[in-house]
Amino acid sequence: MVQVSPSIHNLSSLRKSLNSNEIGRQIYQTISRLYPICRSITGNGVRETLKILQEHIPLEIAEIPTGTEVFDWTIPKEWNIKDAYIKNSRGEKIVDFQECNLHVVNYSVPVHKTVSLSELKAHLHTLPEYPDRIPYRTSYYKETWGFCLSHTQFLSLEEEEYEICIESSLEPGYLTYGEYYLPGETREEILISCHTCHPSLCNDNLSGISLATLLAKHLSQIQQRRYSYRFLFIPGTIGSVTWLALNEQNVNKIAHGLVVTGVGDAGKYTYKRSRRGDTQIDRAAIHVMQHSGSEYQVIDFFPYGYDERQYCSPGFNLPVGCFMRSSHGQYSEYHTSADNLSFVQPEYLGDSFAKFLSILHVLENNRTYLNQNPKCEPRLGKRGLYRAVGGHAEEQVNELALLWVLNLSDGEYSLLDIAERSQLSFDVIKQAADALAGCELLKAKPEPVMKA
Amino acid sequence: MVQVSPSIHNLSSLRKSLNSNEIGRQIYQTISRLYPICRSITGNGVRETLKILQEHIPLEIAEIPTGTEVFDWTIPKEWNIKDAYIKNSRGEKIVDFQECNLHVVNYSVPVHKTVSLSELKAHLHTLPEYPDRIPYRTSYYKETWGFCLSHTQFLSLEEEEYEICIESSLEPGYLTYGEYYLPGETREEILISCHTCHPSLCNDNLSGISLATLLAKHLSQIQQRRYSYRFLFIPGTIGSVTWLALNEQNVNKIAHGLVVTGVGDAGKYTYKRSRRGDTQIDRAAIHVMQHSGSEYQVIDFFPYGYDERQYCSPGFNLPVGCFMRSSHGQYSEYHTSADNLSFVQPEYLGDSFAKFLSILHVLENNRTYLNQNPKCEPRLGKRGLYRAVGGHAEEQVNELALLWVLNLSDGEYSLLDIAERSQLSFDVIKQAADALAGCELLKAKPEPVMKA
Amino acid sequence: MVQVSPSIHNLSSLRKSLNSNEIGRQIYQTISRLYPICRSITGNGVRETLKILQEHIPLEIAEIPTGTEVFDWTIPKEWNIKDAYIKNSRGEKIVDFQECNLHVVNYSVPVHKTVSLSELKAHLHTLPEYPDRIPYRTSYYKETWGFCLSHTQFLSLEEEEYEICIESSLEPGYLTYGEYYLPGETREEILISCHTCHPSLCNDNLSGISLATLLAKHLSQIQQRRYSYRFLFIPGTIGSVTWLALNEQNVNKIAHGLVVTGVGDAGKYTYKRSRRGDTQIDRAAIHVMQHSGSEYQVIDFFPYGYDERQYCSPGFNLPVGCFMRSSHGQYSEYHTSADNLSFVQPEYLGDSFAKFLSILHVLENNRTYLNQNPKCEPRLGKRGLYRAVGGHAEEQVNELALLWVLNLSDGEYSLLDIAERSQLSFDVIKQAADALAGCELLKAKPEPVMKA
Repeated sequence: MVQVSPSIHNLSSLRKSLNSNEIGRQIYQTISRLYPICRSITGNGVRETLKILQEHIPLEIAEIPTGTEVFDWTIPKEWNIKDAYIKNSRGEKIVDFQECNLHVVNYSVPVHKTVSLSELKAHLHTLPEYPDRIPYRTSYYKETWGFCLSHTQFLSLEEEEYEICIESSLEPGYLTYGEYYLPGETREEILISCHTCHPSLCNDNLSGISLATLLAKHLSQIQQRRYSYRFLFIPGTIGSVTWLALNEQNVNKIAHGLVVTGVGDAGKYTYKRSRRGDTQIDRAAIHVMQHSGSEYQVIDFFPYGYDERQYCSPGFNLPVGCFMRSSHGQYSEYHTSADNLSFVQPEYLGDSFAKFLSILHVLENNRTYLNQNPKCEPRLGKRGLYRAVGGHAEEQVNELALLWVLNLSDGEYSLLDIAERSQLSFDVIKQAADALAGCELLKAKPEPVMKA
Repeated sequence: MVQVSPSIHNLSSLRKSLNSNEIGRQIYQTISRLYPICRSITGNGVRETLKILQEHIPLEIAEIPTGTEVFDWTIPKEWNIKDAYIKNSRGEKIVDFQECNLHVVNYSVPVHKTVSLSELKAHLHTLPEYPDRIPYRTSYYKETWGFCLSHTQFLSLEEEEYEICIESSLEPGYLTYGEYYLPGETREEILISCHTCHPSLCNDNLSGISLATLLAKHLSQIQQRRYSYRFLFIPGTIGSVTWLALNEQNVNKIAHGLVVTGVGDAGKYTYKRSRRGDTQIDRAAIHVMQHSGSEYQVIDFFPYGYDERQYCSPGFNLPVGCFMRSSHGQYSEYHTSADNLSFVQPEYLGDSFAKFLSILHVLENNRTYLNQNPKCEPRLGKRGLYRAVGGHAEEQVNELALLWVLNLSDGEYSLLDIAERSQLSFDVIKQAADALAGCELLKAKPEPVMKA
Repeated sequence: MVQVSPSIHNLSSLRKSLNSNEIGRQIYQTISRLYPICRSITGNGVRETLKILQEHIPLEIAEIPTGTEVFDWTIPKEWNIKDAYIKNSRGEKIVDFQECNLHVVNYSVPVHKTVSLSELKAHLHTLPEYPDRIPYRTSYYKETWGFCLSHTQFLSLEEEEYEICIESSLEPGYLTYGEYYLPGETREEILISCHTCHPSLCNDNLSGISLATLLAKHLSQIQQRRYSYRFLFIPGTIGSVTWLALNEQNVNKIAHGLVVTGVGDAGKYTYKRSRRGDTQIDRAAIHVMQHSGSEYQVIDFFPYGYDERQYCSPGFNLPVGCFMRSSHGQYSEYHTSADNLSFVQPEYLGDSFAKFLSILHVLENNRTYLNQNPKCEPRLGKRGLYRAVGGHAEEQVNELALLWVLNLSDGEYSLLDIAERSQLSFDVIKQAADALAGCELLKAKPEPVMKA
């Protein structure tokens, strides 16, 4: 169980107190518990998943009935599955859903019959280029059935009769999603969205679900949050379409947002910009990456990938980017059985968590200040501002940070602007701003706030 | 003779039906007919040239009298020439205008006398760096006479008496140019301008004249043109000055324009931007080049070169670029007898024609649309939009194109804007827009039109 | 003595008449005279220095009393020094202020006593990485004393008693600075600022002081200046703070400004942009560098370095850059005894002077013109504009310059804008503009002037 100290005041304190190895282990543990469950865009697998998350955070569960119209879409029938297998003529289960839920094409209609090899093959999916992996396939909007298996096994199938069985149901029911709202000083929100529709796939997206859960838990226990936070645990595409349709009047409160997925692998970080391309969340994420020492890439928005597609559709155009390590579809394990508990590791998860927190830290602390002594430099020495500082190398940086903050705090530059122009890290700039504010050389510029 | 099918509906259909090898041969054939004629900025050579073009298009011929004031300029006297030669002391014609009209300095005054070698040399022009080529020289505004010859021949001249004869006339007359106007749905025009003042020089600019003529012919026979088109066949500088002076009230109708010259050689393409630098014609031309697979360069506007100098003078500042292969003055054959029927080739001419048509295709089809389902993505599947598409690789591109068009059609992005941002070709984007408009997911944004 | 010809009309003529070798020698000579003097931010060394400069220009001397409040600062006590030494137990002067004034920490309080080696060492400063150099150290705002010496000598000190003596005074007095104002046609000013607080250091900043002095002298003797000029000879930081505090109402007249320092070494040129980053002075300086053929670097503003820190503080944000050769603190001789009369050389000083003058030349002559014949090109030939030009290569450049100036003189482009866009040098562009104005093809755009 995660222990959260009651003395955590704000996000800065949380960041300082954080042990990223420990948090990485906790995220990994959550992934491990969720891994065996067969999820889809609807059904009990999602409910079971959200119930486990409720052990950490008091998620509200929404159930939207089949047939509900959500913009151009309709909530589909609910899909559930108990079992599935292929038996050979000797009655041996050669493909078994209980061993790996990827074996069944997600949303397969029920079927139980005996078929020839050639009829069977028309319903089989493999990955010839990775012959030992089982692919992940879905058929949400076309009623059919199918099995996925390794290409190696596929090649070994003999000409005989096969008993195939998919004990599933596709009936009127509900689309289920989880939502968690944490109020802050302002009603302006930071939206964090992850998709819950994938079965046994770790990076895509148990890593995102678990990181978001632990993050929500930690944020819920700090005493002061500038922003309100909204966490969405939703099935991909239909989930964000549904949520946006039901919450259309409130999206104007979303000040910043991130879709989080694929944060457990060893790959370099990827930040995908929002459609607008240069919003504060884009700049905060990129700034953190630039100063992180980690390898990363920034990619421009394109209308493909995850739920940022919906948040950034032209009717909403929200400032929502996407935070990943290896990018969507750009790794060979993607959407295969190789995206498993070995592919994600605690150390990568912990580091992703720390990076994510650093991005939120920028947003929480990015304010614009006014230099109270704007004509010439003030005498820093007489205010003891040089002494606040330790070693020699660090001293120089901090003195420069003090001068940069003073020089640019004319009301036009936020701390993030100053960090970008000075090429110093946001942390160093914020530390300088705090020191200057402490001796009244700096005051926050009054800004309108959406009161909570 | 060029056969144009009566079934060509619009520029898209024209492009599809076009055989660029065939059109290249037709352009080359026109060049071949025009090659022997001695043109200048005035005179019968121009009239004869325009008459040949009238076999293709119903050019209107303008005759502007000598002495007419056009802005800071005055229409000069008309120059005509019947014959010219240099005979050596044995009466042999060693330089003969009938063999190559470049032998006479264009606009030479009449002369007939016997001169010493040294007096002759003061009137001879050669190219020591290309000793076998005859240079092209003019003297429009200073009354003089001269001969051009190969440097090899120049070196062989002996100390003797020479009979020189230039049977020319320089008298009050007219400046002649051709104009062809094709009305479209709007009175907004696309201006296509080429210069007709050069004698036997193929690339500069029989290639431009001939390409423009064939283009005009084809455009005249399609049933639907968005823009009106105006083709100008004018002498360089004085011709564009004259046309602008006579049409000053109407230049506001010029929405886009291209000067076309030097389109028959093997060199890489050159697009020279308009003075404004980022107008639609600039972007369309550059976009076509980027997606053409051909080598090309883009050069910024500079106030030298062809008639774009006048169209882009500050009092007009028209959106007119210049479309070339090898750039003005940047090839050694430029303004020499080596710019001949070997230097230009049907394949290059045909390819230039196809590129030119692609640029016009962008202009004709560049519209701004409004996504009719702007909140979240619409379901493309239920509208059969995925099925419209063939093979697998192309499918992915087209699906992305559909998503890009939907995502950016918020009224701010034209199709060209979308092509640029998505880095997909205009053709793919337009095809996607057509498909989306076909199922009413997209409607053209109402825009003011200058009715024809 | 510097001879200035009475026939110098304006800055263009001054530039042409200038012999940069000769001016380099004159600057070097001034440096040599000033070198032995022990300057500080206050005191007689500054007065003596300014008195020598008055041999060249009628500097006004300001004396601001100790205790005067200037923004966040207070004028400190005045420091003077007569002598200082360290004697060993045999009574030998082993460190002698008379030999090198860097030996004493600037602003040391008076002291005279006998100390052990270990007590002495607590007050000694050396440069282990450059063992033969004496460092330059100050302690303006903390009352202490100290000596600087070579690390080699430091290592040779033996365990014995030392007599130390600093015969200085730190008492209420004045801060002294020099100011020289040269009126021009407009009251808009060009500010040239240099710091006078360093003792025997040649590049930093006797080079700046001496260059500014000779520049002021030459500018004072030309007959026509567009701008007024203000030269400040002030101690670093406290001097600019003081001047800005006393002249707060008038800083709006500063149209352009340069801090000048470190202009005598062999290093490549450095231009440090103003805080605004793209003002006319920034563009003029960078343009001159680009066309100079000399190596140079451009660095962005940062709030450290010289008095540009104060001029560019957010309450003023003046268009003031910094002109140097080797950049502040980026050379090993910086703030050591190696910044001596060998480190600076006449040839570098003369070249720096010429560059500086070229920058001023741009500012003095950068005007916006209106093409009087904006529709199409005018006929240059009939105005003899082609003939004005000499050799063939230069002719082509100049013809292009004429065409560029005509093409861009629509009221939006200044001559500097035209030089930047055409990539021709300002000199060539100005020459073309003069020629065009001479035949009334160009007229200066009326602009508001702050009458002198």
